[in-house]
Formats: sequence, C-alpha cells, structure tokens
Amino acid sequence: MQKNTLRIGIAGLGTVGAGVFKIISGKGKLLSARAGRKIEVVAVSARNKGKKRGINIGKVKWVKDALSLADDKNVDVVVELIGGSEGVAYKLAKKSLSNKKHFVTANKALIAAHGVELANLAEKNAVSLCFEASVAGGIPIIATIKQGLSGNNINKVAGILNGTCNYILTAMEKDKRDFVSALKEAQELGYAEADPTFDVDGLDAAHKISILAALSFGSAVNVRGMHIEGIRNISLADIKYADELGYKIKLLGIAAANKSYIEQRVHPCLVAKESPIAQVDGVINAIMIDSDSLGPLFLEGAGAGEQPTASSVVADIVDVAAGRTSLPFGIPAKDLCEYKIKPMTNHKGEYYIRFAVRDKSGVLAALTSALSKEDIGIEQLLQPHTRRDGTADIVVTTHKVSEKAIKQAMSSIGRMDTVLETPCVIRIEN
Amino acid sequence: MQKNTLRIGIAGLGTVGAGVFKIISGKGKLLSARAGRKIEVVAVSARNKGKKRGINIGKVKWVKDALSLADDKNVDVVVELIGGSEGVAYKLAKKSLSNKKHFVTANKALIAAHGVELANLAEKNAVSLCFEASVAGGIPIIATIKQGLSGNNINKVAGILNGTCNYILTAMEKDKRDFVSALKEAQELGYAEADPTFDVDGLDAAHKISILAALSFGSAVNVRGMHIEGIRNISLADIKYADELGYKIKLLGIAAANKSYIEQRVHPCLVAKESPIAQVDGVINAIMIDSDSLGPLFLEGAGAGEQPTASSVVADIVDVAAGRTSLPFGIPAKDLCEYKIKPMTNHKGEYYIRFAVRDKSGVLAALTSALSKEDIGIEQLLQPHTRRDGTADIVVTTHKVSEKAIKQAMSSIGRMDTVLETPCVIRIEN
Repeated sequence: MQKNTLRIGIAGLGTVGAGVFKIISGKGKLLSARAGRKIEVVAVSARNKGKKRGINIGKVKWVKDALSLADDKNVDVVVELIGGSEGVAYKLAKKSLSNKKHFVTANKALIAAHGVELANLAEKNAVSLCFEASVAGGIPIIATIKQGLSGNNINKVAGILNGTCNYILTAMEKDKRDFVSALKEAQELGYAEADPTFDVDGLDAAHKISILAALSFGSAVNVRGMHIEGIRNISLADIKYADELGYKIKLLGIAAANKSYIEQRVHPCLVAKESPIAQVDGVINAIMIDSDSLGPLFLEGAGAGEQPTASSVVADIVDVAAGRTSLPFGIPAKDLCEYKIKPMTNHKGEYYIRFAVRDKSGVLAALTSALSKEDIGIEQLLQPHTRRDGTADIVVTTHKVSEKAIKQAMSSIGRMDTVLETPCVIRIEN
Repeated sequence: MQKNTLRIGIAGLGTVGAGVFKIISGKGKLLSARAGRKIEVVAVSARNKGKKRGINIGKVKWVKDALSLADDKNVDVVVELIGGSEGVAYKLAKKSLSNKKHFVTANKALIAAHGVELANLAEKNAVSLCFEASVAGGIPIIATIKQGLSGNNINKVAGILNGTCNYILTAMEKDKRDFVSALKEAQELGYAEADPTFDVDGLDAAHKISILAALSFGSAVNVRGMHIEGIRNISLADIKYADELGYKIKLLGIAAANKSYIEQRVHPCLVAKESPIAQVDGVINAIMIDSDSLGPLFLEGAGAGEQPTASSVVADIVDVAAGRTSLPFGIPAKDLCEYKIKPMTNHKGEYYIRFAVRDKSGVLAALTSALSKEDIGIEQLLQPHTRRDGTADIVVTTHKVSEKAIKQAMSSIGRMDTVLETPCVIRIEN
C-alpha cells in the first residue's frame, strides 16, 4: 500500500487549475485512502504568479515556462489546464507523453484536434492520457463509456454538452426573453464569454461530441465534416410554438453509428417535453447513451465550473495514482477506424418548420402543396398566428422525411412571393 | 498487449448467468479490444444441465459442484450468479478469494451481509472483488462512486433501487389500480416474484442502499438497525392526494452522513413532481448522488433484466482483464469505520398525513390542535373528501418537524373516537 507519493505539476491556474489545487491540498487524507498513495502538487505554472486565486502556492515550485514541467524529474503527472488546441497545450502534451509522464487534461479542443496522435504517443510510452473533464465537466461520462459500458455496443450518444447554450435557451423559455437579452444575462453572470462564438455557434459541443463518438464507436476523433449549427437563429416565437406542440428546444450534440456511417452533428432540436433531456435546465449538462445490452442510460450533472470540472480532473489523477490504466480511447489508438461520415442530406427525421408569410388566401394551400410535392407529410399544423400588419406565422411538424426533401421544398417555398423570410427549420429528435 | 486469456468460471446460469455467457461468447472481438486480452468462459455450473437457456455450453466444462470452480486451476475469475447471502454463494466467495481467484458477483444480499469480510479476504489475497451488478443492475453506479467521484466527499445518495416497487407504484398512479391488482400484474409480467416480500417490503432496496452507503461514506456495510418500510400500505387514495399536492410517491433508498451519524433508510416518499426522480417510471432505476465538489449527479437506467445486469457483470470482468484493480469498497477494508446509526426518531423532515375520520363538526379542529400541541405546523391542507357513508379523508402536509413529534401526535390522534384507522404517514423527501 505504501507507494511513493504521486507528484503533480499543474500548467494553468485559472478557475479549474485553482480548483484542482484546492481539492488536492484540502482532501489529502481522503485521496490517499482512495488512491493507495499520497498525491501532492509539486509544481505549478501560470501566466501571472501574483494573481489572487484563493490558494496558497507558496510551498510549491513556481515554473515560468509551462513546457519545462514536462522535463521536471520531480513531476510524475502533468495536468494541463491552459486550453486551446495548439500552442503551449499541444506542445506540453507531446513533450510530457514523450518523456513518459502521465498527462491529464480538461482540454476538449486539444483532444478533438490531436487525440489520436496523443493517444498513440501515450500508448507507445506506456503512460496514461486522461481527459474525463474535457466533456460534460463533472459528469463521469468518459469512464462510463470506456468502463461501465465495456460489454456494450453503443448505438447512439446524445446530450446537452454546452451549459452556456442551455442557460440561454432556458432563460428564453422561462423568462420570455429573446436570444440577445438572454445572452447578455449569461455574460453578466459569467456563464458566457465576452466573445460567445465558441459556445453559441456550437463549436464547443462539436468538440465534445467528437470525443464521445470516438470513445463510443472506436473511431478516430474527427470534427471535420461535422454538421454544426448553433442557437443564434432560435427565436422566442419558435420556443413558444414548440411549447404549443409539446416540445422544448435544446442544443444537442448527437453521434450515432451503423455499419456504413458515423453520424456526428450539433444543432438545436425539438425534444418531447416529457423526455428526461427536456427537463434539464440552466447550465446543467446531460447525456443519453443507448447501447445494446444496457439500453438507455441517462446521466445529468454540472457540466462546468471550478469544482465540478476539477472533480473530474482529480478522478483522473486518482486513477493514475491507483495504477488503474486504460487506453485513452478504450481500444488501441492504431485500431481506431475512420468511419464514413454520413452527410447531413442523408439525415432522415421529423422536422419543425415555421413560415413567415403574408396572410393571404391560398398561402397555406401553396405551402402544403410544395411540401407534398416532395412527399413531405404534415404531422401537426398550428393555427396560423396572424398579426395586425397582415403577416402570419404558419408552423408545421412533418412526418419522417429526408433532409434532402426538406431542403428542396424550402428552396421552392423560399421563392414564393407570399413567404417573407427563409423558413426556420428545426429538427425533431426522438 | 498480448496477455494470456482471462478464463471465467460462471456459477449459476439463470437469467443473468445466461446473459453474461451470451455477451462473452458473442462479443469476443469487442471485449478483447477493450480489455487488451481474450476473455473466455471455460467452466459453468448450474442446477440443471439440460435446461434451455438459448446458449451453447457444449464446449465449456460442466461442473456439478459450483464450489469446485474455486479449486479449478484453469479458472482465473469466478462469477457468482447464484444469489442468497449464505450457502453456496458465501462459501464460493470465501473459497475463490482464498484461492487467489478474482470474484465477480451480482449478489447484493451476499455483499450486504459479508461485504467487509470478503473485502478483507480479497485485499489479503491481492485479487479483485467486484459487485457492480449488485446495485441498480446496468447503471455503473459503483464505479461512479468509487472512481468518478473519488475527489468528492459524498453527502447523500438516494434512489429508486427496486424496479418491482417502482413498476407497481407507476401502475397504481397511471392506471388507477390498487396495490394488490398492480402487484398481480407485475407478477404476471415477471417483474415480481411469486413471493414478492423481498421486493415490496423494501429488503432488496435495503441491501442495495447499504452497499452504496459503505462506498459513499467509507463505513462498514451494515443493514442492521436500518429503517425499512415497503409499499404494501400505499393506497390509491394516497397516490391521488399526493398528485393533488404536487407530488408522486416513490420507494427510495436513502443514505446520508455527517460527522456524528450515518442515516440509512428505505421507505415510500413523496417527491416533487418536477424532480428528476419523480419522472422515473416503471422498472427503471435511478440514483441521485450529492457530493461537495460536483454537486448533484443523477443517473437513470435499467435496474434489472438479463442483458442490463449482465452488462455490469461483464464491465467488472473487463476491468479485471485489463488489470484495473480497485479496493472493493474504495478504501482499505480495515479502515471502513463503524458509523453511529442515526435513529429514525431523530429524523427531521416534512410529512404527508392522511386521516380517515368520521365527518363530524370539530374533527378538523381536534386534529389540528393535536398537531399543534407537538409544534407540528401545517403546510398544506386538502379540502376534506367526504364520502356518502359520513366518513372523510383529511390530508395535510407539515412543515419540517421531528419524527418523534409526529409519532407522539399520531399516538394521541389514533385514540380519538372520530379517527377510524391508524393515520397514514409518508415522509416528504426534497
């Protein structure tokens, strides 16, 4: 039981880095009981040494150049909490693994971009590459897929992976705010960055779902070719109409596989109000995994924040300390296959469509005839909401059809005189 | 990577045993990619060799006496799926571990009764003792607590741990059936045993929550002294009144700890309709864990059945194959502490109470005065439902009070002439 202390070097002392430092220094007894050995932070590196972080780094070696942690003989595990897919984070990962140091990170961009290369490097050097905190913060989703479901073929994994977007959509729904106002509030509360692009345009969720897809299907991580749509175009009206139809609107990351295709997509979805995923409000994350033996498994918890994200980083560190190794992607990196990406035009599903029209007689007939020409059956049609200015919203949901048919119908409908703007199309996800 | 094949001996070929056999024989390639070595069933033992199970055991050694698996030089892991806390299962566990064989089981009764002794034996012999399938079937709850939350102090764990009871309560609620009729249906569908005692009286959930408590709080598994109430006394009327008050009724296993006490209890609870746990219907299981760094984590999935339970057994086997060892209860068994059990009379909470009374003037005043005498404040009072025969139900919910006060008030109220039966008291769980 009495093994050597596991010595940690932390690169990056932002929110998560400080959180990791706090847990390791504050819960020493608990962690060593669980890990079978002592865990200690021996070196830290950050941009600004003097910044107030609520932690005492006085007794710990301060390293100016994060990269030198990878050369430090006293460091067993490098914990990278700098972020970004390139630059220091990437260099530090390669150097640490090459120098046979375990590498723990919360960096989804890094894993999404270079996961396979780094996994190969980790395996070659017989060290761990762990990234539990990179997806869904504190939810142990990666361990669940790699270990809890190891006897299963996974069919589909889908979830609310971006707390910022879910906060905004929840605020729009509950407080009847529009996107701009809800985003502003999220920024004031620290849930959204000053430049919110990465979150609200779906890129963050895309990185995360690409990692879950690789773990679930044994495919090489790949963001390229992924269909990514954010939530900027979701209007308050759509949320209201969705509600009338029995749905909520959520931004989901979705990955599914069959023998010919791997499907990876991020876009807003209508989800049935009574589904577990629809109940998930605010900054919370949630993931549904469907696998052949277990069936549906649903996990919900904090997807971001200092302590929840640090909780996952520490879980990885304890696994390293206890000698519980696993391959970074669950199977040897060289065996990860290139799945054939399913083009979005091949997608089949139900759709929600809102048409903004001039409320003239014959409009509805023209729309339904254009839909019917592409064999698009209507499932539900909301009573047209006519406004004083003579415009109206016509909202329909469709039967299961191909995205190609929807695109063709929208193209012909978009050219009609009576149709005032590009129809708003949102996929329904069951 | 090319290690020896991990050789499995299965004791018990009931539903779960056959399921494990199917997964190991049908997913060989997948499992060996994930485990880094081949996994093979080399021996099986069951009561009846000829029974139809949908598996081909022709090529596998048939063992008449399950105990001899523990002596078999060709067996690395003994998988016990016989059940029962004593007898063959217990003997097999001790013998297997003593003979340095890994031991994987789905047997909650065994772990609840002898978990600490067996964990000590496993640690002494440096082999694994795994029981992921013993709680909540396919949900990887044990790995989540032991590994996913290793950086956390857990405050509370609570859940729907018995699918039979949840099926019955859901059927009562949705189909307006009474307990007896819902139980009969559950028996016809195979969700309840011919003798349903173990499930409907809460014993099964008690075993499970005692295991989760030990893992969560580092306490020695202990069912003794636990407050256990089943669902036999839940009437259709209570489900209806709970609904009017904004609640559903669920049988929960609950464990919580602070510095002085450990609380372990199983009983029906009123849970707010909008809470995630209230959404869990039918035979599904769900668990909420509250811990200091992560906050609330919610897991939901199949809690029983051939394939889901086998999924967890196989996950344990793959962990053994991959050399991912962990201490049975997360910390050394010798360090598991005896917590002081919190007596139920010290419980503080809100309560639902239904009084069946003779509908005379002054009844309500007498009841409320008796409650007020014990400082029990009323939160909600339902309009009395008077029946043609002159009897009525008076239903109240209380503010937070001690169970002792409730007991005293019920004792004095029970003696009133106008009160027709023992009041029905159900705890509200937030």
